[in-house]
Amino acid sequence: MNFPGEIIVKEVGPRDGLQNETEMVPLEAKIEWINMLSETGTSYIEISSFVHPDWIPQLKDATEVAKQIKRNPDVTYAALVPNLKGLERALEVNVDEVCLFLSASESHNKNNINKTISETLPVLKNVSKEAKGAGKTVRGYVSTVFGCPYEGSIDTEKVITICDKLFTMGIDELSIGDTIGVADPLQVEQVTSKLLSYFPKEKIAMHFHDTRGTALANVLVAMNLGITKFDSAVGGLGGCPYAKGASGNLATDDLLYMLHRMGVNTGIDENKVINAAFYIEKYVKNLSSHQMKILNSQPL
Amino acid sequence: MNFPGEIIVKEVGPRDGLQNETEMVPLEAKIEWINMLSETGTSYIEISSFVHPDWIPQLKDATEVAKQIKRNPDVTYAALVPNLKGLERALEVNVDEVCLFLSASESHNKNNINKTISETLPVLKNVSKEAKGAGKTVRGYVSTVFGCPYEGSIDTEKVITICDKLFTMGIDELSIGDTIGVADPLQVEQVTSKLLSYFPKEKIAMHFHDTRGTALANVLVAMNLGITKFDSAVGGLGGCPYAKGASGNLATDDLLYMLHRMGVNTGIDENKVINAAFYIEKYVKNLSSHQMKILNSQPL
Repeated sequence: MNFPGEIIVKEVGPRDGLQNETEMVPLEAKIEWINMLSETGTSYIEISSFVHPDWIPQLKDATEVAKQIKRNPDVTYAALVPNLKGLERALEVNVDEVCLFLSASESHNKNNINKTISETLPVLKNVSKEAKGAGKTVRGYVSTVFGCPYEGSIDTEKVITICDKLFTMGIDELSIGDTIGVADPLQVEQVTSKLLSYFPKEKIAMHFHDTRGTALANVLVAMNLGITKFDSAVGGLGGCPYAKGASGNLATDDLLYMLHRMGVNTGIDENKVINAAFYIEKYVKNLSSHQMKILNSQPL
Repeated sequence: MNFPGEIIVKEVGPRDGLQNETEMVPLEAKIEWINMLSETGTSYIEISSFVHPDWIPQLKDATEVAKQIKRNPDVTYAALVPNLKGLERALEVNVDEVCLFLSASESHNKNNINKTISETLPVLKNVSKEAKGAGKTVRGYVSTVFGCPYEGSIDTEKVITICDKLFTMGIDELSIGDTIGVADPLQVEQVTSKLLSYFPKEKIAMHFHDTRGTALANVLVAMNLGITKFDSAVGGLGGCPYAKGASGNLATDDLLYMLHRMGVNTGIDENKVINAAFYIEKYVKNLSSHQMKILNSQPL
């Protein structure tokens, strides 16, 4: 194995985690929790989503969250934005980075936002342009790259075309998502190699879900190819969006366990992440990460 | 990556799984279940343990299990044996392979069987000799290789010395165990490389636990070094012996998911394994494998 000595872990728990939890976490708790995360040593937190409140009521307090959290100057505070209206709200509260999203699967995109991929691209182009004009960096999520709940397998050529279009419109970084957690390490090797033959590795992050237990194996393979940025959610928050009770987002604490034990530096304090996991677990029960299951277990 | 096209998955659920479950599974259910496992295409099942019934009451019916299961000629039926008395019982019911065990950690071995490692070795030597004399193959488990609940880290040189002694006494294969599920992929790469510099890869199997979510990443690294034999338990049966509620044995169904999706052949029918998992889940609740969590989830 040949892997980078430093990995950037991007915390998506407050957005991708909470949007898939049925419990509403009170605003004050979110603020306290994000403030805790800001002090873990992380350099990146996606704090909420500026989609229409009817779409994701759990995140309808995005404006208040962004306004009331204590900003650590070493942290990039990002938020999801679906369109110009959402961008306007995000800019009002001065988020550092704007995250756009698009599915690599036509039917998943249609199902998710009721638009085809070609109808979505011009919207993203406008939002990206406006965000860049306002001095923001822009991140794009490309979802269902490794498999779609409706279409099954996704052609990597199609993924490359979409990524190319997104980079061409000025997006700074793309997060390549295994939204339903089906990817296997060989597939990750193949898709990542292909991506890296077109785009520089600094512009690619991987977003794995642990639904079938393969997330850390997939991280390993991507690291071995030089990828240095991975998304994860504290405690495995969020679960799987398609199967209640199954695992979802790769847990930040599981990722840190593996990386730190391998001697890979992240700059993040595992214990502080665990404290943040225990804090949010008061509101969102039964976090699914391996670390939390151990810590919540009874010694025999 | 460069990995073998075929992997032998050794099913340890009926022994390593059930011995860590508090529920007593009725004899008839064990027989029915092992018969189901025998028809999955697997080539290996560890059916029980001939330790003293007071040690592991869950497996006190080892003799009846061995007598009453329907033997598939394509399957090797193995059982754990601690000493000559256990061997005598195992030979009476004609198991195909005898499995011995020893810890790489002095304090774990002492805690487990109340003997030092040097006190244990002559016992194993006798059992191995007698078993071979009776025409049986002999497997050895070396446990806590990647970390010990009492001592922490374990010196790989010590592991090599122990393995060398066990092979010298005629043991055919050693299963290298991460008993408490702490191993990370870099450590697995280092330990496996070292082992393979001394011993042929055909004689080494790996036995990972998924307590911290790293099991499949660890399998991947070992496969990449040429290891072709892995132990696992249906449904992740058994949990962690040191933390009730945490994950234990790598789940056969999770392992098969990854291997088959990578195009690696195992000869095992995943659906039949899942059926066997559902069968045993009637007796042992809440199997922890990712596959079973998905199958037991509610679609959203």
